[in-house]
Amino acid sequence: MAATARRTGRPHTAVLSRELIVETALRLLDERGEHGAGMRDIARELGVRPSALYNHVKGKEDVVDGIRELVSDRFDISGFGVLPWDRAVERWARSYLGSFAAHPPTIALLGVQPLATGSRTSRMYDTVCAGLIEAGWPEGRAMQIVVALECFILGSALDHAAPDDMLDPGEDPHVPVFRAAYDARDRELDGRRPAEASFELGLRAMLTGLRAEFEALGGGRDPRPAS
Amino acid sequence: MAATARRTGRPHTAVLSRELIVETALRLLDERGEHGAGMRDIARELGVRPSALYNHVKGKEDVVDGIRELVSDRFDISGFGVLPWDRAVERWARSYLGSFAAHPPTIALLGVQPLATGSRTSRMYDTVCAGLIEAGWPEGRAMQIVVALECFILGSALDHAAPDDMLDPGEDPHVPVFRAAYDARDRELDGRRPAEASFELGLRAMLTGLRAEFEALGGGRDPRPAS
Repeated sequence: MAATARRTGRPHTAVLSRELIVETALRLLDERGEHGAGMRDIARELGVRPSALYNHVKGKEDVVDGIRELVSDRFDISGFGVLPWDRAVERWARSYLGSFAAHPPTIALLGVQPLATGSRTSRMYDTVCAGLIEAGWPEGRAMQIVVALECFILGSALDHAAPDDMLDPGEDPHVPVFRAAYDARDRELDGRRPAEASFELGLRAMLTGLRAEFEALGGGRDPRPAS
Repeated sequence: MAATARRTGRPHTAVLSRELIVETALRLLDERGEHGAGMRDIARELGVRPSALYNHVKGKEDVVDGIRELVSDRFDISGFGVLPWDRAVERWARSYLGSFAAHPPTIALLGVQPLATGSRTSRMYDTVCAGLIEAGWPEGRAMQIVVALECFILGSALDHAAPDDMLDPGEDPHVPVFRAAYDARDRELDGRRPAEASFELGLRAMLTGLRAEFEALGGGRDPRPAS
């Protein structure tokens, strides 16, 4: 019905753009999941024929890369080249989590589709790699670090999308230690979600481990040492 | 066609069991994705009416929990209570990654469905928590550690399901540092997949960070100190 109203109500062809198509696709993905955000669904939602979309995007893969750009545009890379590398990574990681946690269906989707050449997301990676390498990380290590952090962040985003009591063992006489550990964890949350507490612990552990690795590699060469 | 052949060829009703249903569901999930592994699909594959499945499983959620059990049955928990906690965690984490990487569609599916009371997966968690707590970790910290590691492992399993060149920036003049870092990473792989290299780096960093946290908490109480 909305599509019909739009079709008669406004000059949709004039406003159709790559940006509008991609934003619509992301909204449909959030509302309906991957199988409700195909090219036909996007066209119907925008009140145009599917063929009209192809004047602005090359196809579904291009739309998915556009979604990747929308999500990665919100990563905070402002710390790289300015703050110590570990604080820049921390800022980036938190914003990365927030961007994906706001759009859970993008996690599995973007996790496996190859990056498109020329994507704005590539510029994000360029800045992050430059920040790490300028800080003293070996050139060949930067991408390993970025991907390892991404794995943790994407898994955490998935965890943020799950119910808080997802791992509640219930009344099960066979798992008394799990039950006690679960309850003890909940008592320590102080108003945080379980997923938040685990993200904080994991990020702290990874950064501590990376700092140790950096020092072992001779991090003293760094003009901006770890904080 | 296979279903018809089976229907006439063997006494399927006699062999129908929860185990067979769950194993079939996992196979369909791997072959077709989540939308091809519903109750009707499982019934068709087994050559029975959907209603026959309900004599053995409560419904789709029960099947998914069965899949979770099949996957988590393969986690190696043999180190807990025997090896230093960090080496037990390392063994568990590697087997956990392998189990999920072998069945990529389970990652997003199991990542958000609540654990069923009485699941064999709960016993796995019980053993892991007991190992950590006996080693000296505070009771309330064990689940945070487990979930933080799971986030990293599940994200890594997703990364293992992606093409190796997923992040190749291609010929893009705007990202010279990313391009150089990507190529330098590839030169250092020594036959490993990029996902393997990042998993090793990330796991090492998390374990180093957790050991530091353990020591800061007074890990000296541990009868089996970290290795």
